[in-house]
Amino acid sequence: MTSLFDRLKRDAAPEWAAYVEHPFVRGLGDGSLPAESFRHYLVQDYLFLIEFARAYAIGVYKAPNLMEMRKAAAGVEAILAETNLHLTLCAGWGLDAAAIEAAPAARATIAYTRFVQEAGLRGDLLDLVVGLSPCVVGYAEIGTALASRAPRLADDNHPYAAWIREYAGEAYQAIAAESLDQIERLARDYLTEARYPRLLEIFRQAVRLEAEFWQMGLTLAD
Amino acid sequence: MTSLFDRLKRDAAPEWAAYVEHPFVRGLGDGSLPAESFRHYLVQDYLFLIEFARAYAIGVYKAPNLMEMRKAAAGVEAILAETNLHLTLCAGWGLDAAAIEAAPAARATIAYTRFVQEAGLRGDLLDLVVGLSPCVVGYAEIGTALASRAPRLADDNHPYAAWIREYAGEAYQAIAAESLDQIERLARDYLTEARYPRLLEIFRQAVRLEAEFWQMGLTLAD
Amino acid sequence: MTSLFDRLKRDAAPEWAAYVEHPFVRGLGDGSLPAESFRHYLVQDYLFLIEFARAYAIGVYKAPNLMEMRKAAAGVEAILAETNLHLTLCAGWGLDAAAIEAAPAARATIAYTRFVQEAGLRGDLLDLVVGLSPCVVGYAEIGTALASRAPRLADDNHPYAAWIREYAGEAYQAIAAESLDQIERLARDYLTEARYPRLLEIFRQAVRLEAEFWQMGLTLAD
Amino acid sequence: MTSLFDRLKRDAAPEWAAYVEHPFVRGLGDGSLPAESFRHYLVQDYLFLIEFARAYAIGVYKAPNLMEMRKAAAGVEAILAETNLHLTLCAGWGLDAAAIEAAPAARATIAYTRFVQEAGLRGDLLDLVVGLSPCVVGYAEIGTALASRAPRLADDNHPYAAWIREYAGEAYQAIAAESLDQIERLARDYLTEARYPRLLEIFRQAVRLEAEFWQMGLTLAD
Repeated sequence: MTSLFDRLKRDAAPEWAAYVEHPFVRGLGDGSLPAESFRHYLVQDYLFLIEFARAYAIGVYKAPNLMEMRKAAAGVEAILAETNLHLTLCAGWGLDAAAIEAAPAARATIAYTRFVQEAGLRGDLLDLVVGLSPCVVGYAEIGTALASRAPRLADDNHPYAAWIREYAGEAYQAIAAESLDQIERLARDYLTEARYPRLLEIFRQAVRLEAEFWQMGLTLAD
Repeated sequence: MTSLFDRLKRDAAPEWAAYVEHPFVRGLGDGSLPAESFRHYLVQDYLFLIEFARAYAIGVYKAPNLMEMRKAAAGVEAILAETNLHLTLCAGWGLDAAAIEAAPAARATIAYTRFVQEAGLRGDLLDLVVGLSPCVVGYAEIGTALASRAPRLADDNHPYAAWIREYAGEAYQAIAAESLDQIERLARDYLTEARYPRLLEIFRQAVRLEAEFWQMGLTLAD
Repeated sequence: MTSLFDRLKRDAAPEWAAYVEHPFVRGLGDGSLPAESFRHYLVQDYLFLIEFARAYAIGVYKAPNLMEMRKAAAGVEAILAETNLHLTLCAGWGLDAAAIEAAPAARATIAYTRFVQEAGLRGDLLDLVVGLSPCVVGYAEIGTALASRAPRLADDNHPYAAWIREYAGEAYQAIAAESLDQIERLARDYLTEARYPRLLEIFRQAVRLEAEFWQMGLTLAD
Repeated sequence: MTSLFDRLKRDAAPEWAAYVEHPFVRGLGDGSLPAESFRHYLVQDYLFLIEFARAYAIGVYKAPNLMEMRKAAAGVEAILAETNLHLTLCAGWGLDAAAIEAAPAARATIAYTRFVQEAGLRGDLLDLVVGLSPCVVGYAEIGTALASRAPRLADDNHPYAAWIREYAGEAYQAIAAESLDQIERLARDYLTEARYPRLLEIFRQAVRLEAEFWQMGLTLAD
């Protein structure tokens, strides 16, 4: 039987392809992405992480049982810890912590983060994790694809090798796999055919808004 | 096939019986309820109505489509209009509008209204309407039962004849019938067996908290 | 003393100007806006209205007192009634009701509506009405400006005369004036200096997302 | 200047006294509380903790900045960790983990937890922490009072010595002190006089519902 996630990806195939093969992603892969675009992305990704932690907190509140509460709470902790790592990463790109924290959110950052939070507040944990999946699972797929395609990764001169290795790495792949498990676990318990169109709409719009996040990096949009 | 509402009532049969046959209800039916208890109930019912309007507003927000939005919005309007009628009713019992508006909420009023609102915010419209149903549908059942049992209703001296006639009346019965339709309509689209225990818990606790609301009236609890 | 709204407008002056003088607005004013852009806007505005009704429902839930509940509930009713008028308006532009209802939401529609809803859910009624104000108050300002500038409005050939007259008209101007009153009323009770930066951020982002809504119409973006 | 918390305690002095000097508390202090009451309390306190973790998760979502997010997230983690300790504590009283997890929530458990969660969802972080404070700060005050009054605490035969020592201990006192700091920090930024009556109502009702939680233990209420 098709998993819910595979069904969503299939039914939003053009949007998914436009997201995972976005020029920003290709530029990450072959190293051709301008450093200015990556820096712009890094700053917005910091603001994004903070809102993502809020989304996982909504997940703790919405969780149907203690096990799902613990998983979502671990997500909050991991993301809040990642904000510090992110500032270190940013520092390596010449970005000052104070400047990052004071940066205004770009429209694309607002659009995706608020969309997912609102989907979670309106619906249940399944709505929320479907909205989060283009990010959580998509980055794993992108990381794997770029790692396999990029012969220059071992090359110390590839500017985005660290980024690619992080998302292609075992630790992140395990996070994404657990997220997929969670989607199917919640789908088994709470999915009805009548719910599917709404879930597809959440997924499709989330994928589009994630692609817009890449586009924001590429065009330095505010 | 058993409707969701009948299944809930059957699986919470002792709690339902304790609610619809509560001494407060019997006292309403045979006219033996002390006026002081009825007045205490009326004041708290005013505060209850305001919070009930908020619960229906949550329903507008949560509604899966425009039709359900319109129904919930009509509920908000009807309840807000009823607050004025309620003050008129209270005036007939010697209760002053200013005093009613300034009355502190009893614990039983807080307990049921916040429970239903929170169930709606945490879950979906089905969770919300299941939480509302002991009130919306229960009052219709109680009104019908009391009207059939009370030979003195035509008697002008029955102190609670107006209250019984309102809830036994066609207008209110139609509201309750529509609410039952809505529960089954939402159940058809969104109910899964995995959801049933949570819905039963919402229903059972709501029924118990409604019984506590009668008890609050009876004992003049604050 | 400066009103909160004037302060917000002053502190987001460039964003406000880019919104109320957007090329889409200028095209509405002089009639040069391509009909295709207006039609695209009309369809998305229908989806927008439905989400706006949800935002007002959040306002009913969040209202600090019965008076504010009634005002927000009147807003829900008015917007839900407007959805029908909107379909009639759309029919005049050759747009079929069924097609409009089935139209997918554009990213700009998602971005603004979810941003405002989430701001209301996270914060209080003041956060919500500040987020709504670029729409509610902004349209009144735009309507007045276009009506005063457009010598051809009396001309039956001005394609957007009806639109401009609606928002420049007394009925809509009264709605906007009441909304401004509400902002100041809530600010008097709940504004602190520590809250101002967050309110400005809500306002500024909402103005930007409203401008993006015009841009979506202009470029037929999905 | 009076702190917000002191002002709340002063303005709800009778309710506060009835809570911290409840017969259940006195029975804990002098060891006269029936073991059956303590066991009933322990089981409900487990269910309470799970809902309390949800309340802190709402706090993460509502936090106005990253610092407050981290503090609330630490609260979620601590409470979720405490659920395991709680099962161990319960085992010492002959209570089986499976039985505790399957126990139905008492009305008093529902009433307080949903009240606080809903207050947090409707309002801001200040509303939430004021609603949590009768529990977080009240237990510290009770622990200290019982430890100072109870000469038999060193006596191994005092059945509730471990409970008292936990809440009188430095670790818990530090948590309560931090919670008081947070209330004043948020009050400094977000309190207006117009907000005070609502905050007092949240506090007063929360205190009453906490007292009802003791009462539930005492009377073995379901």
